[in-house]
Amino acid sequence: MTNYAPLIIQRADPFIYRHSDGYYYFTASVPAYNRIELRRSKTIAGLAHAMPRTIWRKHESNSGEESELIWAPEIHFINNAWYIYFAAAETTAFDDNGMFQHRMFALECLNDDPMRSEEDWVEKGQIKTPMSTFALDATVLQRADQLYYIWAQKDPEIFGNTNLYIAEMSNPWTLKSVPTLLSKPEFEWETRIFAVNEGPAILHRNGRYFLTYSGSATDENYCMGMLIADENADLLDANSWHKLSQPVFQSDVAHHLLGPGHNSFTVSEDGQTDLLVYHIRNYSDIKGDPLYDPNRHTMVQAFDYDESGVPVFGKPVRFTEE
Amino acid sequence: MTNYAPLIIQRADPFIYRHSDGYYYFTASVPAYNRIELRRSKTIAGLAHAMPRTIWRKHESNSGEESELIWAPEIHFINNAWYIYFAAAETTAFDDNGMFQHRMFALECLNDDPMRSEEDWVEKGQIKTPMSTFALDATVLQRADQLYYIWAQKDPEIFGNTNLYIAEMSNPWTLKSVPTLLSKPEFEWETRIFAVNEGPAILHRNGRYFLTYSGSATDENYCMGMLIADENADLLDANSWHKLSQPVFQSDVAHHLLGPGHNSFTVSEDGQTDLLVYHIRNYSDIKGDPLYDPNRHTMVQAFDYDESGVPVFGKPVRFTEE
Repeated sequence: MTNYAPLIIQRADPFIYRHSDGYYYFTASVPAYNRIELRRSKTIAGLAHAMPRTIWRKHESNSGEESELIWAPEIHFINNAWYIYFAAAETTAFDDNGMFQHRMFALECLNDDPMRSEEDWVEKGQIKTPMSTFALDATVLQRADQLYYIWAQKDPEIFGNTNLYIAEMSNPWTLKSVPTLLSKPEFEWETRIFAVNEGPAILHRNGRYFLTYSGSATDENYCMGMLIADENADLLDANSWHKLSQPVFQSDVAHHLLGPGHNSFTVSEDGQTDLLVYHIRNYSDIKGDPLYDPNRHTMVQAFDYDESGVPVFGKPVRFTEE
Repeated sequence: MTNYAPLIIQRADPFIYRHSDGYYYFTASVPAYNRIELRRSKTIAGLAHAMPRTIWRKHESNSGEESELIWAPEIHFINNAWYIYFAAAETTAFDDNGMFQHRMFALECLNDDPMRSEEDWVEKGQIKTPMSTFALDATVLQRADQLYYIWAQKDPEIFGNTNLYIAEMSNPWTLKSVPTLLSKPEFEWETRIFAVNEGPAILHRNGRYFLTYSGSATDENYCMGMLIADENADLLDANSWHKLSQPVFQSDVAHHLLGPGHNSFTVSEDGQTDLLVYHIRNYSDIKGDPLYDPNRHTMVQAFDYDESGVPVFGKPVRFTEE
C-alpha cells in the first residue's frame, strides 16, 4: 500500500465495493447530506481523483420522508441488480426519544452500469422493521441463497442511542424474520458521551463472520468493536455471536488520528491484501455541531490476522505529510 | 507534471498561493457555499490529500450581509499579513437587475500561520465600490508600493452580467481611485447564454501583465479570455490593456472536458514551470440548477509561452483514467 492517508478528503462513512467489472465503486456521506453519489476506479488510489456522479438526491425539504440528512449509503450487487441502502430523515428535528428521525431506505438499479444516469435508480421505499424508531447504517450479508439485513436502531426500552440487529430478508428491501438483537452499548468504550453501536460491516474470512461496528460519540471517542460468528452458525441466534470486550480500533491522540470508525472492507487490486476502509478526524477543537464539520476523511489501510485467524487492525496509519 | 487530472474533486474557482514558508495554500468554493477553508502542502500533488481547516463560516441565514452563497475566496499575503477576498450575498434571491446580490468582503489574519485557528481571522467588512450592484471574484496586483484591486461587477447601463474593473487601493480592503472599466462581454464566445466577464487572474511575466478571465455561462460554454498590459504602463488607463479577440482556453467537448475556467496561476515545486489552475466539468447533462451541481473539479496543468513571450495554455489535459 503506497496510498495517501487520508485517501479521500471530506467523505465520512466510506463504503467501497469491488465489482466483477474490475472497478472499485465508492460512496459515502457527503458534507451537505443532500445527495448520494458514486465514483469508480480500477485502483484504490484512483478513487481520490475519480469524478463522482449523483445517482439520487434528497426530496424537497418539508415534503415528507427522505427529505433531510442523507447518511451512510452502501452499494451492493444482489441477484444481478444494484442496490443502495441509506438513512434519511423527514426533518432535522429530534423525536420524543431525543433522537434524529432517520429510517432506512433502498434504491434499485437494473442497468449494468450504476453510474449511467439518475434515471436508472428507482426508489424501493422504506425498509420497515417492527419498531418505528431512529434507524440507520444498514448492511447486508449473503449466505448461499439467504440474504440477511444488519442495522442499527433505537429501542426506547434500552439505554443509549442505537443497538445492532440482524434479520432475514425476503427480497433486498423487505424483512421476513423478527429482528435479533446482536449488541447494545454496554462497555465503557462504547458509551463515551453517547452510548452507541452503529455502522456494522461484515468480513467473511477463515470460517467466520466478523462483524465490526462503531461505538461512542463521533469525536475522538469514536472507536470500533467486533462480534464473531461461525460461518455455519444460526445467524439469527444471538448466542452464535461472540462480542469482544475490548475495542479493535481506536484513536491515536498523540498523532491527531481521532475517532476512526464507520468502516467497510475491501481488498487490494491483486486480491492478496484485506483493506480496512474508515473515516477519521484530524482535530478535535470543532466549532459548533460536529455533524456540520465536514472534516471526516476517508482512510484505507491494510490489515492482517493473528494465528487464530482473527483480524488485527492495528492503529490508524499516520497521515501523509507533504 | 505527473499529477492526476482532475487534481481535487468538487472544488470550483480554485486558487493556489505559494508562500515563503514552502507551502502551497489552496482555497476554493466549497459545494455548500457555506464556509471558507484552507489547506496546504509542500507539493501540488499533496494538495489533493491535504486536510482542510475552516477559517471562516458564513453568518446565519437572514442575518444580513455575508450570510449566503460564499464564493471564490482568494488568499494573498500583503505587507506581512494574510488577506482573504471572497464574494457573499445576504440572500439567495435576485435583485432588480435579475442578478445575485453578492458583494466583495475581506478577512485579515496577522498570525504567521493562516491555518492556526478561525479566531485569528478578522472581518474587514465590504470592499466598497461606487456602484451598489452584484460584485465578485476580486483579485489583487502588487506593483512596487501600489496595490491594485481587479474584480467583476454589474453595471446596469451595460448589457450582460458583469464586467472587469481595476482600481488603486489605499489599504488591502479600501479603494482609493475611481474604477476603470477594463473589459465587458462583447465577443460571441463571451456572451453564450449569459454575457459574462468574471474570475480575473494576473500573471506577471516577460515584461507584461497578462490578465486572464472567464466568459459566458458556467456550462460547456465557459472559457477564458485574456488582456495584456506592459508592466510599466498606467494600469488605470483602459488603453494600456489590449484585449484578445479570441478565447485562450476552452472546452474539448470530444473528451468531456467542459467549461474550463475561473483560473489562477502558480509555479511548480522547482519554480521552473508555470501552472494554470482552473476548474472543469466532465458532463453537461446536469439535472436542476448547475450552481448546485457540485461537480466542478480542480485541474492544474503546465503551460508555456510563444516566441513573443505570450502564454499559450493549449487545451485542457485529458482526465486520468484508472
